[in-house]
Amino acid sequence: MLPRTTALAAALLLSACATAQTAPAADTPAFRSAGQIIAAAPEADWRNVDADNLLLMDVPGGRVMIELAPAFAPRHVENIRALARARWWDGLAIYRSQDNFVVQFGDPVADQADAKPLPTEVASRLPAEFERDGDGLRFDVLPDMDGWAGQVGFVDGFPAAREPGTGATWMAHCYGTLGAGRGNEADSSVGAELYVVTGQSPRQLDRNITVVGRVLKGMEYLSTVPRGPEPMGMHADPARHVPIHAIALASSLPASERPRLQVLRTDSQSFVDATEARRNRRDGWYLRPAGHIDLCNVPLPVREAP
Amino acid sequence: MLPRTTALAAALLLSACATAQTAPAADTPAFRSAGQIIAAAPEADWRNVDADNLLLMDVPGGRVMIELAPAFAPRHVENIRALARARWWDGLAIYRSQDNFVVQFGDPVADQADAKPLPTEVASRLPAEFERDGDGLRFDVLPDMDGWAGQVGFVDGFPAAREPGTGATWMAHCYGTLGAGRGNEADSSVGAELYVVTGQSPRQLDRNITVVGRVLKGMEYLSTVPRGPEPMGMHADPARHVPIHAIALASSLPASERPRLQVLRTDSQSFVDATEARRNRRDGWYLRPAGHIDLCNVPLPVREAP
Repeated sequence: MLPRTTALAAALLLSACATAQTAPAADTPAFRSAGQIIAAAPEADWRNVDADNLLLMDVPGGRVMIELAPAFAPRHVENIRALARARWWDGLAIYRSQDNFVVQFGDPVADQADAKPLPTEVASRLPAEFERDGDGLRFDVLPDMDGWAGQVGFVDGFPAAREPGTGATWMAHCYGTLGAGRGNEADSSVGAELYVVTGQSPRQLDRNITVVGRVLKGMEYLSTVPRGPEPMGMHADPARHVPIHAIALASSLPASERPRLQVLRTDSQSFVDATEARRNRRDGWYLRPAGHIDLCNVPLPVREAP
Repeated sequence: MLPRTTALAAALLLSACATAQTAPAADTPAFRSAGQIIAAAPEADWRNVDADNLLLMDVPGGRVMIELAPAFAPRHVENIRALARARWWDGLAIYRSQDNFVVQFGDPVADQADAKPLPTEVASRLPAEFERDGDGLRFDVLPDMDGWAGQVGFVDGFPAAREPGTGATWMAHCYGTLGAGRGNEADSSVGAELYVVTGQSPRQLDRNITVVGRVLKGMEYLSTVPRGPEPMGMHADPARHVPIHAIALASSLPASERPRLQVLRTDSQSFVDATEARRNRRDGWYLRPAGHIDLCNVPLPVREAP
């Protein structure tokens, strides 16, 4: 994956394609790469993303697509939907970009006198939604050890962790995780000021803040935002803010304009197989399979609906 | 750390400062933040970075400072020093930026007919330097569990891992790790095409490729490079390459122009205490200390020599 040059990269990729084209019959247990497994996944292994959970964020670079997780943060998601329906974020900004940590966006002057008022249909105070019980929740266990939690895995495609003893379950902070910024009080977030993880998984945040979803597409428009010069990556200078053209719910758009995304089901055999192909790579370039994969290293495939 | 707004961020930071100013006497075991511990570290806890190991990479955004690790990759470091002394990289480019993975730089056409020749003093073939034995190596153990290796910790400030049974030791792929790109053959790297990790720690690369150092300062100039549209984040269009103005060894500069950097010794009590303060934060914002820290989440403090 890290060839010396562009030309070599092309060669490697072509070689991977050639392998796919000359794949042996099913009775030969040849190594299949994660990409090959995912490309061959049956339709039933894909889940449609609900348009009511799909948040579309348009910034100068392009469109960021986010899936909300009402199963974990129902009250916050309710507020976020109301804010999106009111197009409250339109014209606001990304005002923080801290290297190897997060970008944060919303109203740069939210706590000042000239803050943008929240729409009346938005709750001005919410309970913390740091974790939930495991009742009725399918948890697709990742068999790999984790230092931060008793067990890790996936809930409907979201990286998650739980305490097997109590069943307490929460969404994990991985690259692309979306959370609701708060002050010192646990219940001081309303879902208007949001952050996205752009660095090494800050799992120390788990169960300390409300996670509301994850980015499905367009991370590159957030991860490349120039880092802020002020403490915590803040951009004090409004000229350095990245404007938010619009944040809207896909369900608010005419059907013809709605992106139709699908995520690979984390309870599918294709997902289990693709994860194993990443855990123990035998694609020619890797000389020593790792024998392990970290929760936040597991790719979560997303595609446009065919 | 994730307050709702800029104003609140300022308030939090001020409050942290106030705590520092009113710190209780030494006989009171009050919580000290990692920042407070590092600020109070004695001079002896800091190590000067050897100018012969300090690589200075000037790109349009600013200067990236890299520490080379001859203890792990002596032959590659020898080549890299020779390339830097010849100013071989000057005018070449960052030609790859793959989201949540790496940037890669060197000669964009290295394997083509018009490749830039390597200086004669540079070895054209090197052995793989994926790992080494533990002889004579001080390994500062991190007591936290790790899924990828039997033991993790630090060697002279570099994140590392080892097999306690055999003593085999290697540098770990964390954010900011610098490695030497290779083709399919283990010994196909010469240190001319280099990559830096800009995403979630790709520990699956450990012991599959030669790690040569880590970025001490200026990661933000690499991590924000626009992602390449081609497979693996390649920028096929030369117009989208990020030019390298210069890569030089600090030891090649006049003494007055050499940056004088120091890293906190990973065998110091200050480092152990700062890591514990991150493992179990009690700074007012965190409501639930994690009780764990991952190797690649441990900050490795760097400063200008006082």
